[in-house]
Amino acid sequence: MRELYHQTLSPACRALRLALAEKRLDAAAVAERFWDRRPEFLAMNPAGAVPVFRDDEIVVNGQFHIPEYLEESYPETPLWPADAGWRREARRLYDWFLVTFQQEVTEPLLMQKVHPRYCGSPWLPRPGGPDINAIRGGMDAVRRHLDLIGHLSDTRSWLAGDRLSYADLAAAAQLSALDYVGDVPWQHNDQAKTWYMRIKSRPSFRPLLAETVPGLPASRHYAVLDF
Amino acid sequence: MRELYHQTLSPACRALRLALAEKRLDAAAVAERFWDRRPEFLAMNPAGAVPVFRDDEIVVNGQFHIPEYLEESYPETPLWPADAGWRREARRLYDWFLVTFQQEVTEPLLMQKVHPRYCGSPWLPRPGGPDINAIRGGMDAVRRHLDLIGHLSDTRSWLAGDRLSYADLAAAAQLSALDYVGDVPWQHNDQAKTWYMRIKSRPSFRPLLAETVPGLPASRHYAVLDF
Repeated sequence: MRELYHQTLSPACRALRLALAEKRLDAAAVAERFWDRRPEFLAMNPAGAVPVFRDDEIVVNGQFHIPEYLEESYPETPLWPADAGWRREARRLYDWFLVTFQQEVTEPLLMQKVHPRYCGSPWLPRPGGPDINAIRGGMDAVRRHLDLIGHLSDTRSWLAGDRLSYADLAAAAQLSALDYVGDVPWQHNDQAKTWYMRIKSRPSFRPLLAETVPGLPASRHYAVLDF
Repeated sequence: MRELYHQTLSPACRALRLALAEKRLDAAAVAERFWDRRPEFLAMNPAGAVPVFRDDEIVVNGQFHIPEYLEESYPETPLWPADAGWRREARRLYDWFLVTFQQEVTEPLLMQKVHPRYCGSPWLPRPGGPDINAIRGGMDAVRRHLDLIGHLSDTRSWLAGDRLSYADLAAAAQLSALDYVGDVPWQHNDQAKTWYMRIKSRPSFRPLLAETVPGLPASRHYAVLDF
């Protein structure tokens, strides 16, 4: 039995749900309210964070190690490129989107606006409301990231070469979480939008597009393939 | 020519310097004032962060991907265990020490006390001085982490099995950075102290123990092997 413990709007969890689907590995997506610090969950991951992947008796934690586990255990449909140079590029971009994009865009935009709601956690919005400068910085940054995606997908089939890789999944995971709240300025870069339409149309994306967060409706075009 | 762009008190950089030395790979340690955002450095890593490893024309960024690159390119003296189960355990602990220990201990203790000084960065200490509650939380957390190290090293030769691995290097890197400012309560756990004395005595550790931060002397016992 395979399970991915996740949160719906967590980009790292989304990237790994996409990876499991691309590899055609059945895995139940288990929504974990990690802030409740459930003892059974802490026993699997003492760090108390999602994503956690359970494969029968095997438990693997964290956005960087789950891909290594999946590639070692299920090498069919590889999602790291076979070529060492492209593999470095894919890992660089996976890191870029899960760490740098997270810091520059997701934390100032999505986390400020949504985290307290989707988590139901004790975190509270800042007194005085959201930090307008942080939101403005996040909106500037998302345009730069769209330009990077547009540039890469203009010169390559996918972000790290001629096959879909974890680099694409990480970028799409971030943008799809942000798109849920309608914060992606798609008109800013047509090539990035075309790349996203292509990945969004894949069967692996369907479960994400069908899922909603209670009390937080998705943006109007979130699940529309031709938006 | 191999170079690791680093900062002296960055635990992730220390872990990788230890890894390079354990694998007997000559690499110059280049202190990078990453907050200056040097164009040549940004060209290597647009994210602008250390560690960055350069191996002739190849550039690899980030604490999670440099080990994968080193193991793939230089498989002699492996630092991930050969057994899949122990490899998962080593990766789990590498993540634990570089992420969870960093959040629970290094940020509240080392970063609050030292970051503005060793960086020479524009970051300033908080008005009103350091946050006493954060420091107290960090001191509680470091005792829990020492207990974990003590427990693991009591039942295994090294933290993730019978050979030294990235798990040991990450834990030792964190503790050595904290030890530089004298914030490790070694008397709290004898087994953890014994494990640290063992790893600190290895030749790979010598360059770290010999290095000091201008304007910030090391704690009295920092470089003493029998402390």
